Amino acid sequence: MKNIKLEVSYDGTAFHGFQVQPNQRTIQGELEDALQRLTNQPVKIIGSGRTDAGVHAKKQVCNFKINHSMPLSKWPVALNALLPEDIVVNSASEVPLEFHSRFDVRQKTYRYSIYHHTYVNIFRRHYTWHYPYPLDVEKMKAVSKVFIGEHDFTAFSSAKTTVENKVRKIYAADLWKKENEIYFQITGNGFLYNMVRIVVGTLVEVGRNKMDPEEVMELFEKKNRSLAGLTAPAKGLTLWDVQY
Amino acid sequence: MKNIKLEVSYDGTAFHGFQVQPNQRTIQGELEDALQRLTNQPVKIIGSGRTDAGVHAKKQVCNFKINHSMPLSKWPVALNALLPEDIVVNSASEVPLEFHSRFDVRQKTYRYSIYHHTYVNIFRRHYTWHYPYPLDVEKMKAVSKVFIGEHDFTAFSSAKTTVENKVRKIYAADLWKKENEIYFQITGNGFLYNMVRIVVGTLVEVGRNKMDPEEVMELFEKKNRSLAGLTAPAKGLTLWDVQY
Repeated sequence: MKNIKLEVSYDGTAFHGFQVQPNQRTIQGELEDALQRLTNQPVKIIGSGRTDAGVHAKKQVCNFKINHSMPLSKWPVALNALLPEDIVVNSASEVPLEFHSRFDVRQKTYRYSIYHHTYVNIFRRHYTWHYPYPLDVEKMKAVSKVFIGEHDFTAFSSAKTTVENKVRKIYAADLWKKENEIYFQITGNGFLYNMVRIVVGTLVEVGRNKMDPEEVMELFEKKNRSLAGLTAPAKGLTLWDVQY
Repeated sequence: MKNIKLEVSYDGTAFHGFQVQPNQRTIQGELEDALQRLTNQPVKIIGSGRTDAGVHAKKQVCNFKINHSMPLSKWPVALNALLPEDIVVNSASEVPLEFHSRFDVRQKTYRYSIYHHTYVNIFRRHYTWHYPYPLDVEKMKAVSKVFIGEHDFTAFSSAKTTVENKVRKIYAADLWKKENEIYFQITGNGFLYNMVRIVVGTLVEVGRNKMDPEEVMELFEKKNRSLAGLTAPAKGLTLWDVQY
């Protein structure tokens, strides 16, 4: 029995998220289907975490256990030949049998992209939130640093969140503008449901001068979702990296 | 009667090219349809030139004549509200009645993108030619300069080309690699059918050491299409700029 770890990228546009759901096109579903066709065995994959419908991944990690003699280097090519064009396997490696893609995550990085211009950028429309109104990017940049450290992110998570402990540690948070795109990149030990998208929605409230930096900081104490910004659209979000 | 010039961008992936064709989704067709719905008049647009199925435009130019009182600044917003999400109007301006988008072109710029890596880049798959084999980029860069100047491009045009004069003047040609993408950008007074794609196909033959620089130069004399490289895929090509 081998434990194989895959690094995959996907364009989330045409998926109902990562996790298998009946009668829906999901990343996990497509990967398990390709693995089953390749190996003639039912295969269950474990992802580093779910991503929502429309959310992309530059690097998502998953693993599966299998008895199969195919050399490691052949797995990506063989799987890519069977996968649809919006998922690609970038690498395969063998890991200890006890490795678990979700439990063993040390840190994750997400990047959010806002296209800040009057008109849509046709080539980035599936990968950015088109925001045509004025934004104070310098103010957003300053407030982005507020998230660094250990905080209670209750106010920045969906009401649907079921986990009890809503404290997460953020190691890095950066916001910068290049040409017409504003990027927000955040690295932490874990993220709650919709957390990055609500943080971005809140940063946009700051950028349009609807919220002060102090009000953002108070949200860690107030723990009230309704005081934070709206949930930014899924399509601007990309799972950028997962570290073990 | 006004003559209105539009600058438009489009993602060519889901179009059968620019020019109207019966029962096919085309850029001209969508623009004329949106104009007709907006103005309640049949409108015929003139483009700077056709683009093939799958070819994109960062800046395509077209014009149309109309009797309509809407202020100029309203045209882009009103049209974008009616257009599908893969076409966007970036500007509208009033031009002299004699202005003609095709006849008055002074120069055009095209950019071709090759994604040069083992695996596909999911986010660039519709906008690049995925080429996973070794390429001598320095050699391609040197040979890209061969196209500058006035040359007979018969060998670099589709057999379907109907124009008689196949001499075109190239003002600039650059090739460079950034991260995993190779870009080829070319500016000239005009381009024959499939010309940029055949030039790129030929540069790739050079990059894989199947053609010498001398053989490329000789093609201007030999005028034999079958001696040039294959036609590179449409999806890597973008009409970048049109100047008047």
